[in-house]
Amino acid sequence: MASIKQQMTEIGRNAREASRVLGAAPATVRQAAIEGMAANLTAAHDAVMAANQDDLRAAAAHADQAFLKRLQITEKIFAYMVDRLREAARLPDPLGIVLEGHTEPSGLEVSRVSVPLGVIGIIYEARPNVTTDAAAVALKSGNAVILRGGSEAWRSNTLLVSLMQDAIAKQGLPANVVQMPSCPDRQAVRELLRLDRYVDVIIPRGGKELIRAVSSQSRIPVIKHYDGICHLYIAADADPAMAVALTVNSKCQRVEVCNALETLLIDRDGAKTLLPAISRALRDKGVELRGCARCRRLLPDLKPAAPADWDTEYLDAILAIRIVDGLDAAIAHINRHGSGHTDGIVTMDLQAAKLFLARVDSASVLVNASTRLSGGGDYGMGAVVGISTGRLHARGPVGPRELTTYKWQVRGNGQLRN
Amino acid sequence: MASIKQQMTEIGRNAREASRVLGAAPATVRQAAIEGMAANLTAAHDAVMAANQDDLRAAAAHADQAFLKRLQITEKIFAYMVDRLREAARLPDPLGIVLEGHTEPSGLEVSRVSVPLGVIGIIYEARPNVTTDAAAVALKSGNAVILRGGSEAWRSNTLLVSLMQDAIAKQGLPANVVQMPSCPDRQAVRELLRLDRYVDVIIPRGGKELIRAVSSQSRIPVIKHYDGICHLYIAADADPAMAVALTVNSKCQRVEVCNALETLLIDRDGAKTLLPAISRALRDKGVELRGCARCRRLLPDLKPAAPADWDTEYLDAILAIRIVDGLDAAIAHINRHGSGHTDGIVTMDLQAAKLFLARVDSASVLVNASTRLSGGGDYGMGAVVGISTGRLHARGPVGPRELTTYKWQVRGNGQLRN
Repeated sequence: MASIKQQMTEIGRNAREASRVLGAAPATVRQAAIEGMAANLTAAHDAVMAANQDDLRAAAAHADQAFLKRLQITEKIFAYMVDRLREAARLPDPLGIVLEGHTEPSGLEVSRVSVPLGVIGIIYEARPNVTTDAAAVALKSGNAVILRGGSEAWRSNTLLVSLMQDAIAKQGLPANVVQMPSCPDRQAVRELLRLDRYVDVIIPRGGKELIRAVSSQSRIPVIKHYDGICHLYIAADADPAMAVALTVNSKCQRVEVCNALETLLIDRDGAKTLLPAISRALRDKGVELRGCARCRRLLPDLKPAAPADWDTEYLDAILAIRIVDGLDAAIAHINRHGSGHTDGIVTMDLQAAKLFLARVDSASVLVNASTRLSGGGDYGMGAVVGISTGRLHARGPVGPRELTTYKWQVRGNGQLRN
Repeated sequence: MASIKQQMTEIGRNAREASRVLGAAPATVRQAAIEGMAANLTAAHDAVMAANQDDLRAAAAHADQAFLKRLQITEKIFAYMVDRLREAARLPDPLGIVLEGHTEPSGLEVSRVSVPLGVIGIIYEARPNVTTDAAAVALKSGNAVILRGGSEAWRSNTLLVSLMQDAIAKQGLPANVVQMPSCPDRQAVRELLRLDRYVDVIIPRGGKELIRAVSSQSRIPVIKHYDGICHLYIAADADPAMAVALTVNSKCQRVEVCNALETLLIDRDGAKTLLPAISRALRDKGVELRGCARCRRLLPDLKPAAPADWDTEYLDAILAIRIVDGLDAAIAHINRHGSGHTDGIVTMDLQAAKLFLARVDSASVLVNASTRLSGGGDYGMGAVVGISTGRLHARGPVGPRELTTYKWQVRGNGQLRN
């Protein structure tokens, strides 16, 4: 299989070269390229749908319904893909921003300026919309991108990439700004993860298995997205209607996503009235509840929660519920059992809100808002390529700005070091 | 050796707990702790010097002069250690800074706020001043730190750590904010690198061997400092006196450091006059010159440069010199052979300076300044714990701000997701 190794090395080298040209191109050219990608996509609507149908037919034999649903480009998803491209084009440019600057006593002018990371590798599974999302975010931030999508979406992705390359070339930029391997051989992933000479960061998007495999094999830094064990803590003084609405929305708006609620913490002083109201609302929505011993004293028909429940990301219509002794206990539970993704408090007490925001060690901390609102779109970032549960470089949503680094620019007139 | 594994796990857990308390402490308390560290150090001057003498005596049997020089706390270095602590205390606080913020149309208030990374592991070799520098930078940024210095400096480091812990405890902070293993067993390093549950980032400081070993073994992200193959490009229009002075200072001010000049590029149009002047000045300083074929046509007695010279970090009184065909060729050489550390141009042409700053892909890019000025001190950062040659998270000098991450704080009044 030397040929796949050669091909991936070639792709890496091409990406590095393309990234240097792209990084030097003005924002208007990058913006026009992304707008061109949206236009090309729109013009090729029927061909994209046909390619996706081919993918769906080929996958139907061995894939389950959930998989096929992720693979499908519906009209709604198609419109969303085009919208995200246009939105990315319109976002403020993240490059060339003077992040800070000062003049030294010697007269040396020092500034720190945002620049592209360089080359990004994205490894993902079924969803073809990642192909356009990732290319848009990468291009916006001046990075070349190597896309390795799932084999089942190969026809869709191949067409999408060629449409995007055409738009990029039309702006006089190297088409190699966006590349994908020529065939869905699995070895391509392993080779990509070894290209530390050419690739600056790897972003895996998909299930935990994929992320674990990529992280353990990669020689390149990985921005990764592990568990979302998200909490909501209902303080004793919480507005009952708001507490019910936020719990239901956080848990039920979509159960299979990372910022869905997994554990509800209720203050002991509010539990007597709040727990029955919340459990009624959740059971109406078909959510299975698993409660601590104190919960079951109030609601004896609750299923008991085992210790493992506090550390479980269900991604399903199940919720663990625990009664805690006040704010400190809630914060301690979250910092011990949470995954540092998204955690919220429901309270009207300013001091409790302030302490919760300061002490809970998570990427997103919320007061009186649904956990489902955590993420790029609702933070006004527009386009994101993933969510980071790591602490280095990017924490939370990864948009164009998170795919930049900086350089120090120093201007002198002959300064020496003594 | 289960006991070392247990001890390091214990140290990791303690550090994580201490980091939570420290991260919640006000800036004034952290500042007072660092000032207390400086005061304790000053008060214990004689004891520190005696401990260091013990280290030096024990090492004298097997270590060379260069090693002993790094190990020694001279009066000058002692004063510098105290100064760096005081300087770190005075620096602006890097925590709790609202990096950005906005209100969504829904009324959701979103802000991004700087917070500590958490727990930092520093692995270093002989120099005992790293012990105080690293602790100061970590404390300033609200991070707990695990220090694993070289075994030869054990007596010095043990005393320094206990003096610092005393100052930390006096401010009501957990002494475990600064920890080191109880004995210099090498296994401690391996165990530290496995503590991904408790330690957020590892910073190795020392030779390439150390950095490579740490990077390959670590389960924790590493901020690393590889080669400094630094360039200076002398344009044809450069002021000759400035070109000579900058070259001599960049190469000779200290040859063994990462931002010392390793390769000089001279434009062909200026080479005839500049090369003889520069080579005379460098030879007067005892620098061995290795020139390309075109250099040797102008100065036949130059030693020839082999292709490997363009990729070599000498860290010695040796300089490779190459004549290039203009700015683009210089930039191409640097981006191909450089290490992305520090590269400069000497020119009076505004357009050339602008292009060089934009196109050279290095952490520090300089115009008309000595490469020796690249780094934290001369960028006004005050205290640094290392220099990053990576692109993610931190690029260039790593000071208190580079040891922070951020969290998203979201304030609502019941917002749901539709």
